[in-house]
Amino acid sequence: MNAAPGDTLDTVGEFGLIRQLRRQWPASSPLVRHGIGDDAAVLTPPPGHQLLVSADAFIEGVHFDRAYETLRDVGFRAGAANVSDIAAMGGRPLCLLVSMAVPARVPARQIRELYRGIRDACGADAVDLVGGDTSSSPGRIFLALTILGAIPANRALTRSGAKAGDRLYVTGTLGDARAGRHILRARARRRHPSGLSAGETFLTRRHLRPTPRLGIGQALAARGVAHAAIDLSDGLSGDAGHLCDSSQVGIEIRGNALPLSPHLRAFARRRRLDPVEFALTGGDDYELLFTAAAAHHDTVLTLARRAGVPVAWIGDVTPKRAGRRLLLPQGRAGALVPNGYRHFAARRTARR
Amino acid sequence: MNAAPGDTLDTVGEFGLIRQLRRQWPASSPLVRHGIGDDAAVLTPPPGHQLLVSADAFIEGVHFDRAYETLRDVGFRAGAANVSDIAAMGGRPLCLLVSMAVPARVPARQIRELYRGIRDACGADAVDLVGGDTSSSPGRIFLALTILGAIPANRALTRSGAKAGDRLYVTGTLGDARAGRHILRARARRRHPSGLSAGETFLTRRHLRPTPRLGIGQALAARGVAHAAIDLSDGLSGDAGHLCDSSQVGIEIRGNALPLSPHLRAFARRRRLDPVEFALTGGDDYELLFTAAAAHHDTVLTLARRAGVPVAWIGDVTPKRAGRRLLLPQGRAGALVPNGYRHFAARRTARR
Repeated sequence: MNAAPGDTLDTVGEFGLIRQLRRQWPASSPLVRHGIGDDAAVLTPPPGHQLLVSADAFIEGVHFDRAYETLRDVGFRAGAANVSDIAAMGGRPLCLLVSMAVPARVPARQIRELYRGIRDACGADAVDLVGGDTSSSPGRIFLALTILGAIPANRALTRSGAKAGDRLYVTGTLGDARAGRHILRARARRRHPSGLSAGETFLTRRHLRPTPRLGIGQALAARGVAHAAIDLSDGLSGDAGHLCDSSQVGIEIRGNALPLSPHLRAFARRRRLDPVEFALTGGDDYELLFTAAAAHHDTVLTLARRAGVPVAWIGDVTPKRAGRRLLLPQGRAGALVPNGYRHFAARRTARR
Repeated sequence: MNAAPGDTLDTVGEFGLIRQLRRQWPASSPLVRHGIGDDAAVLTPPPGHQLLVSADAFIEGVHFDRAYETLRDVGFRAGAANVSDIAAMGGRPLCLLVSMAVPARVPARQIRELYRGIRDACGADAVDLVGGDTSSSPGRIFLALTILGAIPANRALTRSGAKAGDRLYVTGTLGDARAGRHILRARARRRHPSGLSAGETFLTRRHLRPTPRLGIGQALAARGVAHAAIDLSDGLSGDAGHLCDSSQVGIEIRGNALPLSPHLRAFARRRRLDPVEFALTGGDDYELLFTAAAAHHDTVLTLARRAGVPVAWIGDVTPKRAGRRLLLPQGRAGALVPNGYRHFAARRTARR
């Protein structure tokens, strides 16, 4: 970049920043005719495909904290959250628009780091930056991304197709990102933080560098195997509830089937915390939750193996009247609620 | 709406808000298969068309001030700014995504008013709300909109097609919105503001309810008459500069050809201000600046008459080496700069 090291948005200007971004993030997709810098970008839709579009906002003090995350980290997480929405529909990402408000004192170098993080999150895919808006902020950093993707016509995995009798699957392991954030926060409060163990490094990476599950999402959509899918951004208990709401079904999740990494287990054991609680409520894992007919169980496992991502059968879809249940050891059960679960004994209403 | 009058985002929740918005802004476009509420919306691109996509951010304290604008006003202006980007490309708007961060104390009713304003700005067009993200804000209100539009393939009006010899046109009248903001600001500072005159009402409406120029934009694109177009969001002097940058041309604007409303003239006369300065730097007019070959002059005027919008020939496109000039009365001239113009006598560099 040609900008002087002391540049800020004020001195570089929005158009100076756009010129720098054009070099840093050159257009590569043949679908984009006019990218960033005109009133609107012009895109040629890929033939035989539908378009996917999704937006996410990341607000300093709500979604991120610069005490323990660099702006590159923040960009990566915001980019991954957007790409994950496309993954959850079974699509491939095409292009991004990035709007932000940044305090005038933030160096332009850091703004470019933020964009670098967003771009890194798009991985090897040719995801173009086609628009956005950059403004000064009188307060915190505000980041709003919109992503466009493509999906072969009528193949999109929605939240609303789950059927009673389906099996419920989840990719990867759950709760790691929340544990990682917990570790980063605690370290930021210490004056002389100690180094990270291998397990802590794994957990913090899961927070800072989540992996959108594009491959398995696309495979499930292409084969028409999954009935419904959603990505886990709020946490399993909340997102499973969204799936139930949209599909008008119930679910039964087996607590001992939830995939937990050995690092999360060790972390929880040391701190006397419940790892299942982390798995249920840890947002920001960006794993996929999906349902498929029992007859397709072997196909699901084959697709997962080919995509190189572990998939666990964690429970089943039930009729709506059966509610949203979590089965616990020793025959106990709880009601899934957005912020985890409640033992049935407590007799509190299961939905807020 | 069913929400209690005292509801806030905190009590209604994001999903409660989405449910309310679905009723307030029901899906109407046949192109949208899954709208708001899934991981991503699914759109069927209209056959034979390209897609347009553009984003704009509106930040409290930078782009709007609740001391003299309601959230419905803010929504309208943000919506109009987005629709205007589609108008400047010659397209028609299809759907919107709205991301926002709102302090927890803002009543849900006001958030719905903000959406109502956005929707009003889309006019009679079937523009669907297909996504977004709503979060609490630790500070001000942040608003980030993304709009998608459609344009017949290869008809988009870009900023980069202007040719030396083209005539330079502008729709409507210039500077009104800035004068309107000036009036609203001054009133907000007074303890007992007086009523607005008819002229002041006109000017404040031009600020609060700008009209995106969809009809003329679409007509120019469909007929292939305009070589380049841009909407005036920063102000004529700055936006004309963007057009020159993109097209690698110069321009010569005749100061006495700039279309000024009688209300702006009266406002400026009373306050001993230069109305030309307002016309050059008043952003938020959302008029269109476009260029066309001299041979198409009559066609341009005919299309404008049919679209019901005044169009003024304000100058000409020149070779790049001729620079960016403003011709003033008595044979004087100035250099156009982003924040207005500088008399050539001053010998200061014309570009920052």
